[in-house]
Amino acid sequence: MPSPHLHLAAFVTAGPGRPGGWRYPDSVPGWLSAKYYQNIARTLEDARFDLAFFADILSVPDRFGGSLDSQLRNGALGSMRLDPLHVLSSMGAVTSHLGLAATVSTTYAQPFTVARSFASLDHLTDGRAAWNVVTSFQEAEARNFNRDEQFPRELRYERADEFLEVTGKLWDSWEDGALVLDTETPLFADPDLVHPIDHKGEFFTVRGPLNVPRPPQGYPVVIQAGASAKGKDFAARWSDVIFCSHASLESAQDFYREIKERAAAHGRDPESVKILPSIAPVVGATSEIARQKYEKLFDLVPPLGGLSTLAYHLDVDLSTFPLDGRLPDVEVPGVEGHYHEVREMTEREGLTLRELGKRYGGRVEGGFIGTPTEIADGLERWFTSEACDGFMLQAPYQPGGFEDFARQVVPELQKRGLFRTEYAGKTLRENLGLARVQPGEWRHRVRRDSAVRA
Amino acid sequence: MPSPHLHLAAFVTAGPGRPGGWRYPDSVPGWLSAKYYQNIARTLEDARFDLAFFADILSVPDRFGGSLDSQLRNGALGSMRLDPLHVLSSMGAVTSHLGLAATVSTTYAQPFTVARSFASLDHLTDGRAAWNVVTSFQEAEARNFNRDEQFPRELRYERADEFLEVTGKLWDSWEDGALVLDTETPLFADPDLVHPIDHKGEFFTVRGPLNVPRPPQGYPVVIQAGASAKGKDFAARWSDVIFCSHASLESAQDFYREIKERAAAHGRDPESVKILPSIAPVVGATSEIARQKYEKLFDLVPPLGGLSTLAYHLDVDLSTFPLDGRLPDVEVPGVEGHYHEVREMTEREGLTLRELGKRYGGRVEGGFIGTPTEIADGLERWFTSEACDGFMLQAPYQPGGFEDFARQVVPELQKRGLFRTEYAGKTLRENLGLARVQPGEWRHRVRRDSAVRA
Repeated sequence: MPSPHLHLAAFVTAGPGRPGGWRYPDSVPGWLSAKYYQNIARTLEDARFDLAFFADILSVPDRFGGSLDSQLRNGALGSMRLDPLHVLSSMGAVTSHLGLAATVSTTYAQPFTVARSFASLDHLTDGRAAWNVVTSFQEAEARNFNRDEQFPRELRYERADEFLEVTGKLWDSWEDGALVLDTETPLFADPDLVHPIDHKGEFFTVRGPLNVPRPPQGYPVVIQAGASAKGKDFAARWSDVIFCSHASLESAQDFYREIKERAAAHGRDPESVKILPSIAPVVGATSEIARQKYEKLFDLVPPLGGLSTLAYHLDVDLSTFPLDGRLPDVEVPGVEGHYHEVREMTEREGLTLRELGKRYGGRVEGGFIGTPTEIADGLERWFTSEACDGFMLQAPYQPGGFEDFARQVVPELQKRGLFRTEYAGKTLRENLGLARVQPGEWRHRVRRDSAVRA
Repeated sequence: MPSPHLHLAAFVTAGPGRPGGWRYPDSVPGWLSAKYYQNIARTLEDARFDLAFFADILSVPDRFGGSLDSQLRNGALGSMRLDPLHVLSSMGAVTSHLGLAATVSTTYAQPFTVARSFASLDHLTDGRAAWNVVTSFQEAEARNFNRDEQFPRELRYERADEFLEVTGKLWDSWEDGALVLDTETPLFADPDLVHPIDHKGEFFTVRGPLNVPRPPQGYPVVIQAGASAKGKDFAARWSDVIFCSHASLESAQDFYREIKERAAAHGRDPESVKILPSIAPVVGATSEIARQKYEKLFDLVPPLGGLSTLAYHLDVDLSTFPLDGRLPDVEVPGVEGHYHEVREMTEREGLTLRELGKRYGGRVEGGFIGTPTEIADGLERWFTSEACDGFMLQAPYQPGGFEDFARQVVPELQKRGLFRTEYAGKTLRENLGLARVQPGEWRHRVRRDSAVRA
C-alpha cells in the first residue's frame, strides 16, 4: 500500500554545508558543537521529520588541481566534516522519534565494526538508526587508507554486496528473545539462541556472533544513493530508502519508475523502497522576498567552492580546463547524475566553467523558490505524479534553512494532509511504513551472478 | 607538581558488568538504553568524577572450551557489549565536565578512522574525550576480522606504536587557528595552516590531512593498561592515564614506582602520567552490613561465569583442567597481572578451580569492604603512600555501586580534602592536571629500536 503521506528527511552536514551557505547571515558557525546539532534535531522532530541524514567523506577532497586550497578557503562541502556517528548519538539524546542516518563506507571499514555500531545505535535510540551505504569513490580517500589508488567500481560494489550480507548475518546472530535476563537460574542469554555465523567469503571471513543482541528494528534502515547502473541495481536490491538528485520532474519520474521496477524484479514489494529526491528550497513570505533571498545566497557562492565540489562529485580534475571556457565532454568516474545535470545547465544557458561553479554551488534542485504555498504546490505535484515518496531536504544555509522549512512549509503540507502531524510509530521503520526485518530476509538480496565471487 | 587531590575514574560496562552483579537486586537491566548510561553519567558528574571509562572486546569470548555457553548463560563480562563510542556520546549530551573514555583497538581499526572519531568526540564535548588504547589479544577477536589467528604480541605493539604516531600527526594536521571563518574574504579555513601528513610506514600509509580541526585538548587523553613488560614500556611512553589492577598495596607501590621511572627515562615528567589502580569497593552503613552485602554479592557469582572470564583474561582454556583440582602452572599469553593475582589467591587459600572462578568473579581489588569512613581510610592510605594518583572505580553491581560510592564515599574524601568539590578546569586534561598537547609532542615517543621497522 502506498504511503498516505510523503516522507521527509533532512540532509544535515556535520560541517559548513552547501557552498557559500556558511556566509549567509542566518548561518550559525556551530559545526563543532553538540548543541548546534541538537537544536537542528529538535527543530526536525517538532516538525515530525522522518529522519536526519548525514553524508560523509573520508578526506578533504583535492580533486581540483591536487590542492586542498579551494575546498578549505571557500568552506566547500568537503572542507571539514565531523564523524557523523557521534553527531547522531548526540542528536538521539534530545529526541525520541527522529530517525538518525549516518553514512559509512563499505570500502574502508569492517562488517563486524559497522554491524556493531549500528546495532548499538539502534538499541540506544529505541529503533531509530539508519545506515547510508557508500562505496567511496575518491582517490583522496584511498590515500588515507593505505592505498595509492582506489579499488575499481566493480570491485567496490562486489565488496559492498558481501559486506551487507555479513552485517545481516551478524544482526541475526542473536535471535529475537535471546536475552532472557533470568537472575534465578541464572540465564542471562540463552546460548541456544546465539549463533556463530562462520562466514567465509571473497572479501571477509567473520566468525561471529555479534556481541550485541538483535536490533529493535531487526535491521537498521538501509539508505543508498546509487545513480550509476551498478549503483541503481545495488540500491534496488538492498535499500529501504533511496536518495537521489533530479533537476526536473520528468527525470525524477523516470528514475522512480525504473527503481520500482528493478525492486519488483528482485522480488521486493516496490512500496518497501522509498525514493526521496533532494530539494534545497528557498522560502520567503512573498515570491519576491524568496527570489531576493535566493539571489543573496547565490551571490555568496564562491565559484571555486562550487567548482571544486563539482570536481569531487564528478571525480574529474576541472582545474585543467580554462575557467572562461565551457565544460568539455569528459569521462566521469564519479556521480553520473550530477554530470548530466551540469551538462544540461551548461548547454541551456551557455555557461563558462567559472559560472558553472557558481551555479552548481548555488543550485536549487527542482527549482523550489517561493512562498510556503508555492513550495507546497511544487512538492505536492512531485509527490502526486509518481516522482517520489517524499523528499531529502537540503538547507541552503544551516540551521536557518531547516527552521524556515519546518515552520513555514511543513504546516502547509500538514494542512493538505500530505504530511503527518504526529508520529504514528515508535521506530524509524514504523514511521517509514516499513516492516521490521525478519531473520534471514537479506539472504536473497545477494547477487548470485558475481564475476569476482563466481 | 603532584596533584593536590586524587583522581577518580569509573569503569562502566556497556553490558552486564562484573560476574553476578546483574543478579543483585539493586542492579537495573538497562544496558541497552541510553537513559541507563545517562543516569550513571549524571551520578558521576554530580560527584565530580574525572571520567567514565569503557573497556571493550570485539567478540563474545569462547576461550573456555571453545564455547560461548558459560559467558552467555552467566551474563559474564564479555557476554554482551554495546559500542562504547555511542554510549559516550549519549553521556556527553547530559553532562558538561565528565571525561569520556572509550576503548578502541589499534589492531582492528585504521588510524584515520580513529583519529577522526576521537577528534570529533573531543569537539562535540568541548575537550572531554579519552582513548583507551588496546592491541586486542583474543583469538575470537581475530576471527571476526578476517584472520584465523591473531598477530603475535610483538607485532601488535609495533603496529600500535605506528598507529599512535599516525593519529598524532593527523590531530596536528590542522594547526591551531586554521579555522578562520571569515565570511567576507571568504576564508573558511586557512590552507597554509592545514597540511597533508604523507605518512609512509611499515603498517600504514596515510596522506592526510584529517577533515576535522585540531581537537580542543590538542590530543584526547590517552589511557593504557599495560601489565606485560611490553605493555608497561608502551604505557610509559604514550599514556596520560594508566589503569592497573593490584591485590595489595605493596604490589601497587612497586608498579607505581616502576612506571614513573620508566616515564622519566623516556624524558617525560612523571607527574604527567596518572596511575589509577582498579577498586571494586562494597559500601555499607556499618562494617557488618558491608560484609553481608559482599557475601550476598559473592553468592550470586556463578563459578563458570568467573572462570570463563578468567580464561579470557589469561587467554588460556581453563576448561581443560578438572574443576575440583588446582590451577596448574600455565603459559599466559593474556593479562599476566591477573595470573599473578590468582596464583597467589590459589596458593594462599588452597582453592579448587571452581572456587577460584567464584573468587575471581567476586574479587574486591584492594579489599575495600566497609563503611564510607573505612573505605576512605583505605583509599587515603594508598594515595598518600605513593601507590597511586587516584582510582578506577568498578561497581560490584551497576548502577547501584556507582551511586553508593558517589553518595557515601566521595563526601568523606571531599571532607578530608582528598577530592575536589568543584571541577577546576573545563577540559578533561585540565581536570587531570595535564597540559594541552603541543603540536609534534608525540614525535619523540615512537620507539626507534623497533625490530620490525628497522
